[in-house]
Amino acid sequence: MTSDALLAEVTRGGRVEARHGGVAVVVDGRGDVVFGAGDIEAPEFPRSAAKAMLALPLVESHAADRLGLDDSELVLACASHTGEARHVAGVTSMLRKVGRDASSLECGTHWPTSRAAAYTLAAHGAKPGSLHNNCSGKHAGFICLACDRGEAAPGYVQPQHPVMQVVTASLADVTGARLDERNRAVDGCGIPTYAIPLRALATGFARFGSGEHLAPSRARAALRLRLAVAADPFMVAGSGRFDTRVMQWLGARVFSKTGAEGIHAAALPELGLGIAVKCRDGAGRAAEVAVAALIARYLQLTEAEMHPLQDLLHPKLTNWGGQEIGEIRSGLFGQLS
Amino acid sequence: MTSDALLAEVTRGGRVEARHGGVAVVVDGRGDVVFGAGDIEAPEFPRSAAKAMLALPLVESHAADRLGLDDSELVLACASHTGEARHVAGVTSMLRKVGRDASSLECGTHWPTSRAAAYTLAAHGAKPGSLHNNCSGKHAGFICLACDRGEAAPGYVQPQHPVMQVVTASLADVTGARLDERNRAVDGCGIPTYAIPLRALATGFARFGSGEHLAPSRARAALRLRLAVAADPFMVAGSGRFDTRVMQWLGARVFSKTGAEGIHAAALPELGLGIAVKCRDGAGRAAEVAVAALIARYLQLTEAEMHPLQDLLHPKLTNWGGQEIGEIRSGLFGQLS
Repeated sequence: MTSDALLAEVTRGGRVEARHGGVAVVVDGRGDVVFGAGDIEAPEFPRSAAKAMLALPLVESHAADRLGLDDSELVLACASHTGEARHVAGVTSMLRKVGRDASSLECGTHWPTSRAAAYTLAAHGAKPGSLHNNCSGKHAGFICLACDRGEAAPGYVQPQHPVMQVVTASLADVTGARLDERNRAVDGCGIPTYAIPLRALATGFARFGSGEHLAPSRARAALRLRLAVAADPFMVAGSGRFDTRVMQWLGARVFSKTGAEGIHAAALPELGLGIAVKCRDGAGRAAEVAVAALIARYLQLTEAEMHPLQDLLHPKLTNWGGQEIGEIRSGLFGQLS
Repeated sequence: MTSDALLAEVTRGGRVEARHGGVAVVVDGRGDVVFGAGDIEAPEFPRSAAKAMLALPLVESHAADRLGLDDSELVLACASHTGEARHVAGVTSMLRKVGRDASSLECGTHWPTSRAAAYTLAAHGAKPGSLHNNCSGKHAGFICLACDRGEAAPGYVQPQHPVMQVVTASLADVTGARLDERNRAVDGCGIPTYAIPLRALATGFARFGSGEHLAPSRARAALRLRLAVAADPFMVAGSGRFDTRVMQWLGARVFSKTGAEGIHAAALPELGLGIAVKCRDGAGRAAEVAVAALIARYLQLTEAEMHPLQDLLHPKLTNWGGQEIGEIRSGLFGQLS
């Protein structure tokens, strides 16, 4: 654990109550390191941070256009959503455009991660379904791609399925990483996830953001997805979440995407840079402040832009009575003295 | 972070996806160290792990007997409960015995931490109240003690309130730790929490379990609370939780209590030992497997007793489709090769 950098500290009454280590890297589209802390070459599972790269073939193949998917539906194909009403309606619409419904989804079922959405569902006497799974939009995108290609959709989550082969090839191309059975595991939603160096994930985000080092058709697809997300960031994450908030504030200047177990990546297109952070212990709260710190460090932000970012850089912690009892502080750049 | 020991690793497809460091200590009632890993003298907030020690004056003063609190209500005074129906009914009953109701609670409100209980509440069109706060039983105990002593209950969460002074003195006595404004912060439920060496917390648990090094009346109160918890462990934690499960299996051979931000402590009364674990990053999942590993290491367990403990020692991780995708492994004792 000694090679990990300090990502964040959580305080209570001025004392550090928890501390998070991990790895952080900023690279350009060639993968050249602009900033690195910790072992940036060690393989990590990108989990849901890779979703936009897996969604590229849906756009690049023109399947999305042939099927009439709208921009908010393209965002859902990249999303880890909270199961709120617009998310569920959008995924339903995507499936309907290929004559399918929720029964085609192979992502499994969980309650909406938005507690408000979950309680609303419960208040209506309803149970969650696979549409509420945070990955349902990604899966609907895979089903759309399968149908457009004339492939049988069932089994689309399997590594050998033609759709999974196509989207995996896209991820390999954009990140430059080797993806095969030796670094493969199963993600929370049943699709493969491949452990890749954090530097490669950041490189993929740099390329996704700038289009550099990508084939022109792939670069155009990335731009389209990125602008769609920036125009409707609620759809990629959900109410109150980091990715929603940072893109509501900074728009297309950032493309930010979280993944499970403390992985988080972002693109800064105007600089051609990609950011990737892995919190060693899997805590999203630490990866988020680290990503916020790196965004603030590298983007030239006005004071007005910095102001709302403060809540993401230094989240205040309150107790159940509403009393402020501590905060989360970034550990990068030695702000901690 | 370098002095931390490896507490647990989380795997996915055979690879380590997350790693948790921290401190673990086992001591006897004198505080002599039987096992130590990491900086056992560094102060940590015991949070809810201290609840049973804070509940001692309620029993020791005979307030509980005068007020007619039953054993399950004594357990609630030590509990971090999940807001299930029996918890809420028990806390309501405690308050009724001093002519109070939920409006006297100063713990704040949150949805039941049991998702099933929360959805049931929502399905009935209800909102959570302070009774659902996981600390409501502890707070009801404080209110009972205030009423029995003839003190005004309002403000009982303040460090200067006579009830808080009495329960803080109990915690200081049992742990042997200094508790004053220099190491004080505010807990999630509004009462003070004091950063104390992890070794002192473990010492307190050793004494709470064995009664050694405590005044006879305090030792009797500890025994009564401990046996009440062992007889009804659901009330101290709730459905499916670590503390409930470990005491359902091992009964009064263990007294186990979790706290927020990765603190967890346990007593092994037959050995006169106390255990305390702090996961540096605040993850309960790692503190739990570390506590399970220490229990398994020091208690002489039969094969039949070990069998159900396996689920706590090596929890299997499944994805939303029910597929096993990894596990959590203890990092203590070099099981990891």
